Amino acid sequence: MDPSLPEPEPLRALIQALRGLPGVGARSARRMAYHLLQHDPDGALRLGRALQDAVGQLRHCLRCNSFSQADLCPTCTHADRDQNLLCVVETPADQNMIEASHGYRGLYYVLMGRLAPLEGVGPDQLQFSRLLERATDGAVREVILATNFTAEGETTAHYLSDMLRARGLSVSRLARGVPSGGELEYVDAGTIAWALHERRPS
Amino acid sequence: MDPSLPEPEPLRALIQALRGLPGVGARSARRMAYHLLQHDPDGALRLGRALQDAVGQLRHCLRCNSFSQADLCPTCTHADRDQNLLCVVETPADQNMIEASHGYRGLYYVLMGRLAPLEGVGPDQLQFSRLLERATDGAVREVILATNFTAEGETTAHYLSDMLRARGLSVSRLARGVPSGGELEYVDAGTIAWALHERRPS
Repeated sequence: MDPSLPEPEPLRALIQALRGLPGVGARSARRMAYHLLQHDPDGALRLGRALQDAVGQLRHCLRCNSFSQADLCPTCTHADRDQNLLCVVETPADQNMIEASHGYRGLYYVLMGRLAPLEGVGPDQLQFSRLLERATDGAVREVILATNFTAEGETTAHYLSDMLRARGLSVSRLARGVPSGGELEYVDAGTIAWALHERRPS
Repeated sequence: MDPSLPEPEPLRALIQALRGLPGVGARSARRMAYHLLQHDPDGALRLGRALQDAVGQLRHCLRCNSFSQADLCPTCTHADRDQNLLCVVETPADQNMIEASHGYRGLYYVLMGRLAPLEGVGPDQLQFSRLLERATDGAVREVILATNFTAEGETTAHYLSDMLRARGLSVSRLARGVPSGGELEYVDAGTIAWALHERRPS
């Protein structure tokens, strides 16, 4: 930036703060700042308050580790949930997807991440000991690993599988195969190879 | 969202507010919210404060219409600027680019947008009357139109050219042609056609 054209300090600070958002570079941050200031100051103030409220009011549920306003989240305290099943997911978004499938009535544990050694995210950073404590509460009979089918998600699932089976727990993994409605022509070769290998009698 | 898994209200409100940012959809907003809450609560609070400070402290410079903390911005009050030249740009970012070229010592007028009839942005919305008042202050001798070379930027330039020339002002437009370092193979045909038409003796 040419020093002869100093950006006003509040604008500079806002652009800098917006760059802290994931996936937002210098140009996007600038565009966002101009947009908010020029066209949506109310939205800017609303976002400012929402950020402060969220940071101030949200914590992690002591049982499932997802975001919660109370010590225990509504899902964990729900009376109708099957206490014998524990589904492990990477993020609350993944948990939402599983809920939306209406195919699961057990409980959850949200890792809030996945093993990523290159980024310095190991078992300690993800507090695997908390999951172990949760899974060995005596009620859980089966742990369903629902981490993503990416390299990192698979690594996480393998690690957790070893860790949990060593404690005598029954561990399962989401099935892998051709997605519902999937056309073979548009499915990647790895998925097809897997689906062939895991073919089921029909 | 399945009602059996209610998102905590502050999280829902934060995701909703983030969706107000340009270019941010539901998935990105959710990812941003998780990232801030999980990995960067300090950054979230910093962004919250920056938004409130920016909205509270920034206004439009009375002369150039760019964002400013005072009634007049430092550029407009700078002693060494050539008062005879007025460069019209769409955004403060464009102004920054021209400053960074070190090829201009005149003053600016920032439209904070461009004509976009389909979006309801016309001469009134852009307050062209303010630009007219600024350009006819007696000191300005030449107005340089530096709107983008997009359809909307060109429309805006044509409109402003007519408006300003009708008041007896000398009006110019940034030159169009092959960019510095540009290889013809990678330059679009329209630009090459223009560069041929506007060829200069060498």
